[in-house]
Amino acid sequence: MNENPQAESREPSFTESPFRDFSKLCVHTITTKPWSVEEAAEQFARNGIGGITVWRDALANRSIQQTGQLLRDHNLTIVSLCRGGFFPHTEASSRQAAIDDNRRAIDEAAELGAPHVVLVCGAVPGQPLTESRQQIRDGIAALLPHAEACGVKLAIEPLHPMYADNRSAINTLGQANDMAEELNSPYVGVAVDVYHLWWDPTLEQEIARCGQNGHLFAFHICDWKTPTLDLLNDRGLMGEGCINIRQIRSWVEAAGFKGFNEVEIFSNRYWAEDQTEFLEKIKHGYRYHS
Amino acid sequence: MNENPQAESREPSFTESPFRDFSKLCVHTITTKPWSVEEAAEQFARNGIGGITVWRDALANRSIQQTGQLLRDHNLTIVSLCRGGFFPHTEASSRQAAIDDNRRAIDEAAELGAPHVVLVCGAVPGQPLTESRQQIRDGIAALLPHAEACGVKLAIEPLHPMYADNRSAINTLGQANDMAEELNSPYVGVAVDVYHLWWDPTLEQEIARCGQNGHLFAFHICDWKTPTLDLLNDRGLMGEGCINIRQIRSWVEAAGFKGFNEVEIFSNRYWAEDQTEFLEKIKHGYRYHS
Repeated sequence: MNENPQAESREPSFTESPFRDFSKLCVHTITTKPWSVEEAAEQFARNGIGGITVWRDALANRSIQQTGQLLRDHNLTIVSLCRGGFFPHTEASSRQAAIDDNRRAIDEAAELGAPHVVLVCGAVPGQPLTESRQQIRDGIAALLPHAEACGVKLAIEPLHPMYADNRSAINTLGQANDMAEELNSPYVGVAVDVYHLWWDPTLEQEIARCGQNGHLFAFHICDWKTPTLDLLNDRGLMGEGCINIRQIRSWVEAAGFKGFNEVEIFSNRYWAEDQTEFLEKIKHGYRYHS
Repeated sequence: MNENPQAESREPSFTESPFRDFSKLCVHTITTKPWSVEEAAEQFARNGIGGITVWRDALANRSIQQTGQLLRDHNLTIVSLCRGGFFPHTEASSRQAAIDDNRRAIDEAAELGAPHVVLVCGAVPGQPLTESRQQIRDGIAALLPHAEACGVKLAIEPLHPMYADNRSAINTLGQANDMAEELNSPYVGVAVDVYHLWWDPTLEQEIARCGQNGHLFAFHICDWKTPTLDLLNDRGLMGEGCINIRQIRSWVEAAGFKGFNEVEIFSNRYWAEDQTEFLEKIKHGYRYHS
């Protein structure tokens, strides 16, 4: 008796909607961090990958406008600019500096041709999370006129609770949805990342809510390894961990999302590998485990 | 101008209800892991510490009944036995083995004289969390007759979402409360640990709910360090991290809890130190940061 025929073959059945090509695959520049944005563009294009999300560090010492053109010349859709945020600070001057930096991120997204900036909202160790959340809300509100003027949207990304100390006081999709609803602007939505949210018992309903609001701007994938050896840089390739990515993707698609599946992997292990081989693994993980 | 007079002195004000002694302090045997349970008993008693929570490994190769008597002879209240749980498994035979092992834990608690067993409920990487939760509920339900017969209660401890892969599919106090309500027995409650739950925006209301139900069996304290270098064994001493322990304790006390404040710290760093000095630090952290 084989109770799990799926285990026999890595090829999924048609009913599970496998991807037929890589046109809806997007890879973050930080995923293949050893590559320059130009090298990433060439490699992604050569592999038929449809999208790229650009991290701001990849744009250093370059014409952002020309880089955007280069990506489009490679038939790559620029999916997002990563990342803005980090609004909370104990000092008002630091909060203002964060808002100013986020304005620059919006400018960079406009120059590059990215439709939105992903926000890692920030937190200050020891400052009450409620206070940090208020500062996040105030920071985003302060940015809205500039975002609208530039035609660049802002995607609140809830981060895993293990980052609540110093990276984000927004740790569930419910909280991100609450904030997007409160800000009530077509320029504010959320980014859903399976790594941060897979454990949440309310995830399916919060994804549906997010879709109904028109707030579902981005979908990030990777996997959660057992054991996880580092809180930041030990993310797994799709299929390498315990996240049922396909199920979460089905919820996202049922909520009306038609965008890219963005592979965002921080991994000391993979960054040390040959990136061409790593990209093959990404394609495999995308095809059979996403 | 000094906007924060508290920073002037480490002595808290009366309104913050500092502890006047260590009679409501409980230390887990695993916190001072290098000490045997006998040595821990002597040291805790010498320092006026009122309670001890015993981990099962500390009872190996001993008469459990005599160990319980030894602890009582040192005027220590036996607060909990840690730990049972780990109910989910893909095979039915393994689930039965887990239930059998939990029966033994209940027996051990009865022999020792501990009023309850803390449950780290378990999870299986790749098995849907919904399935693991059903197995947890079934496992606890199967134990209830034995728990009642022995007069030993079971405390469901929700674990931080970073342990949802292989340690617990119960990751919020809301989930633990739901399960305790569903099982609806005076022998089932929950354990609140600040390390696992501090980030949760619903924590205050869920603690209140838990108290109203008569389900608040235990309260564990330590701190969340920035950075946290290891997912398991890098917990901080109270005051060393970002958790507002005093605020959470005020919620627990407002919910009617009158039990011990249990210091549960897994730390490779502290286990490598002189444990007598570490116990002094625990007392200081308890007094000024709890």
